[in-house]
Amino acid sequence: MIIIGERINSTRKPITAALEARDADHILNEARRQWEAGAAYLDVNTAMMRSAEAEVMTWVIELIQDELPEALVAIDSANPAAVEAGFKAHKGRPLLNSINGEKERMDALMPLIREYNPRVIGLTIDDGGISQDADNRYRIGAELIELLLENKISLDDIFVDPLIFPVSAELQAGNVSLAIIRRLQQNYPGVHTVCGLSNISFGLPERKLINQVYMILAMGHGLDAAIIDPLDRRMMASIITTTTLLGQDRVCRNFLKAYRGGEFNLDPVPATAAE
Amino acid sequence: MIIIGERINSTRKPITAALEARDADHILNEARRQWEAGAAYLDVNTAMMRSAEAEVMTWVIELIQDELPEALVAIDSANPAAVEAGFKAHKGRPLLNSINGEKERMDALMPLIREYNPRVIGLTIDDGGISQDADNRYRIGAELIELLLENKISLDDIFVDPLIFPVSAELQAGNVSLAIIRRLQQNYPGVHTVCGLSNISFGLPERKLINQVYMILAMGHGLDAAIIDPLDRRMMASIITTTTLLGQDRVCRNFLKAYRGGEFNLDPVPATAAE
Repeated sequence: MIIIGERINSTRKPITAALEARDADHILNEARRQWEAGAAYLDVNTAMMRSAEAEVMTWVIELIQDELPEALVAIDSANPAAVEAGFKAHKGRPLLNSINGEKERMDALMPLIREYNPRVIGLTIDDGGISQDADNRYRIGAELIELLLENKISLDDIFVDPLIFPVSAELQAGNVSLAIIRRLQQNYPGVHTVCGLSNISFGLPERKLINQVYMILAMGHGLDAAIIDPLDRRMMASIITTTTLLGQDRVCRNFLKAYRGGEFNLDPVPATAAE
Repeated sequence: MIIIGERINSTRKPITAALEARDADHILNEARRQWEAGAAYLDVNTAMMRSAEAEVMTWVIELIQDELPEALVAIDSANPAAVEAGFKAHKGRPLLNSINGEKERMDALMPLIREYNPRVIGLTIDDGGISQDADNRYRIGAELIELLLENKISLDDIFVDPLIFPVSAELQAGNVSLAIIRRLQQNYPGVHTVCGLSNISFGLPERKLINQVYMILAMGHGLDAAIIDPLDRRMMASIITTTTLLGQDRVCRNFLKAYRGGEFNLDPVPATAAE
């Protein structure tokens, strides 16, 4: 399972404040804790810095990689200037979060993808908007894969996000995304699928419980990457256990290591754990 | 999800003692609590009563149905005399737990099945023993279904148990049973699949966590019945949440009812929750 740590995101107020103040300690602390908790990528979103987005992206990436030379960043931006600044600053191959099927965004970002050869997240949305229809979202994902392959990005470097609607609004929302994940994995073996999960539980109580259960279901259908908070210990315990049950943990080594490390000694669930 | 409550089982010492003493209060208390927690069937196993197995089976079934007239029993025995005694005592259609592909067992139980028309659990084991091979266990399950259909048991009254090996002993054990469940549901739409889950976690710590996660995965592959302890509140919370996420809970009614009923106010997980 490829964990993309979501915490360094300028839509979170403490992060905005830390970015504005160039508070290196705060950002590094967030980076280090996620890295130590098992994140393969640290997502960095600096969009709320507006005109300084590109400059702050550069600052954060250099800050993180100076301190954690092996850490990789998911450059989370739709702004070509910030994306390019991130690509330039990054050592090793970053993950671009994200492209989608919208022509304008694609035209702006594809030249940078060709030049810098990052790994890429593709969202299943296009100029027709976000569709609730499984066939439609699958089609957009398949078209994105084909386009990236034509541009010399290999299947192992492509992550497709099936997108998720709230189950409170649409009874089949969970099943639709599970079906898209399974179909992408079957038709493009080796491609990655990735989700930000929290939309599934929108409008309901006990959101953390719902997100956790949906993560397990999605992994059972082939999801192999997720944008989450790696400091959420219950979520991480679910992921480790699921990986073991799906036959991806020889002699249960990771499970037993996590057990011995106390990772299943969880705090009580508060009555209303909604985030 | 069809819950079969597993607690009234003579392999549990307090139950053996209660059965030996014909302690109606103890047995009724176990029955009532499971029934109120949502069990559709109450499993009754009196095998440890040996020569009195049939007599005690009759006593327990009458006891339960006098107190809870709508409760149904899963008659858990391989002993034809106890099975027949159970069928005779039971009001409404019981569930037989279980037949399998062994010729001797089948020859003894099939005449009773034809006479009493119960619902039936079929285990994917035959005279060749228990196979670790998915194709082999699927084949046994399919043959059991065909045989029961020939004997006028309808698909909706057949529950196939794919059996589960410990993931600690066999890396693919979890995947094998998931594949059997999916294949049975695809090829015999309307048939039920059922599991006793706890074998999956044998030999590992944190067994309750593992069982819970495997339940979610199995439901994601089509499992629609389970032999569990309905008083295990974490397991029940997982089942309710999974049902909602799989689109089987219109307007999230059951999820919200469970939430309002405090069913997600869970106690802390003890550090070593192995059973």
